[in-house]
Amino acid sequence: MSPTEPIPILGGTGALGAGLARRWARAGVPIVLGSRAADRAEEAAAKLREAVPGAEVSGLLNEEAAGKAEVVFLAVPFRAQSENLNNLREALRPGQILVDCTVPLAAAVSGKATRSLGVWQGSAAQQAQEMVPEGVTVVAALHTVGAPTLADADAELGEDVLICGDKKADKARVARLIELIEGLRAVNAGPLEMARIVEQLTPMLISVNSRYKAHAGIRLTGLPDADHWA
Amino acid sequence: MSPTEPIPILGGTGALGAGLARRWARAGVPIVLGSRAADRAEEAAAKLREAVPGAEVSGLLNEEAAGKAEVVFLAVPFRAQSENLNNLREALRPGQILVDCTVPLAAAVSGKATRSLGVWQGSAAQQAQEMVPEGVTVVAALHTVGAPTLADADAELGEDVLICGDKKADKARVARLIELIEGLRAVNAGPLEMARIVEQLTPMLISVNSRYKAHAGIRLTGLPDADHWA
Repeated sequence: MSPTEPIPILGGTGALGAGLARRWARAGVPIVLGSRAADRAEEAAAKLREAVPGAEVSGLLNEEAAGKAEVVFLAVPFRAQSENLNNLREALRPGQILVDCTVPLAAAVSGKATRSLGVWQGSAAQQAQEMVPEGVTVVAALHTVGAPTLADADAELGEDVLICGDKKADKARVARLIELIEGLRAVNAGPLEMARIVEQLTPMLISVNSRYKAHAGIRLTGLPDADHWA
Repeated sequence: MSPTEPIPILGGTGALGAGLARRWARAGVPIVLGSRAADRAEEAAAKLREAVPGAEVSGLLNEEAAGKAEVVFLAVPFRAQSENLNNLREALRPGQILVDCTVPLAAAVSGKATRSLGVWQGSAAQQAQEMVPEGVTVVAALHTVGAPTLADADAELGEDVLICGDKKADKARVARLIELIEGLRAVNAGPLEMARIVEQLTPMLISVNSRYKAHAGIRLTGLPDADHWA
């Protein structure tokens, strides 16, 4: 990645996307917020520029935002994931990495956010891998980082992001971007199929959060200090 | 629990059971190791008495061990869980709590330890709840604590145990026992059905362990300091 290549966040007007954008913007990373509506994207971009003075942020349609960098983040609710991926068929090109943050909460079909749906392919990320154009690689990440914590400018992060994907090099590129956010450590959780498990952490954390009135994250203990991604 | 009530560990000759027994014995808790064979149980008990001088440990058949306290731990491989529960039908009595530590690893059917099996009831713990005599309550716990770490007398623990069960009072009793082991914090992860998710953490950790050459555990960040179980 060139140091000036921006991070496109599709679904960047949602809670998770906006929270990530805010953290990256504070770290000096240029951001492209994507949305299904250009005016809402531009609105969110203006809001972010106001919140983080000097932030380099633009707002575009998802399909346009998707072309702005090699690594693209998809942060939409599960309910809208398939529709978004359909819309991106012409926008994504071989060689790109799509980072899927989708969690198949039962809330997508008016169920509970503490329960999940079974996805035919095994996980939302594997569904995404099936739907992206050939040559586009899906990496799954950022399921357990809470939007309220990201949005709270005073909240210090100190947690892990479990990354799933079939090639370490792809995961490493995503890890480097994620670790630009202070307090996040990217952990290699295995192949993309491991998203079946990692995506499930979110309903568990939502359940814990309601019980403890907290914003819990995940941290793995016992890992070596060495940089896994070097 | 009376302070002298022992902790029966069914499958106490296995790696997890033996590791837990060692930690509890070091904390001064009397232990009853259960096994399918009385001589192997007594052998394991002798070994533990040698390793932890002054430890109060006996070895019994699982069915006998199961009657020695109100809270009983079941630490057997998934392959043997149903058989063990069948054998316990006459041994368990109403009012008891069975703490199920079973993880449905695909290794049970010669598959990978980084993958899991679908259990009809949703989780091994829910299968246990279906199989225990009426009036016995199943609580799920201790899936993510690694046997090698428990067995290593020099290893300091500093991780969470996610506890699932339908009644907070039952979970609290189990939490108190678990927290007798230094370095373990018991976290209320929700109703027993949440074991569907918590049991899945083990194959994920096994995958991480092989990649990082580590013995990883789980820690939730962002929880309040107050004693949840008080």
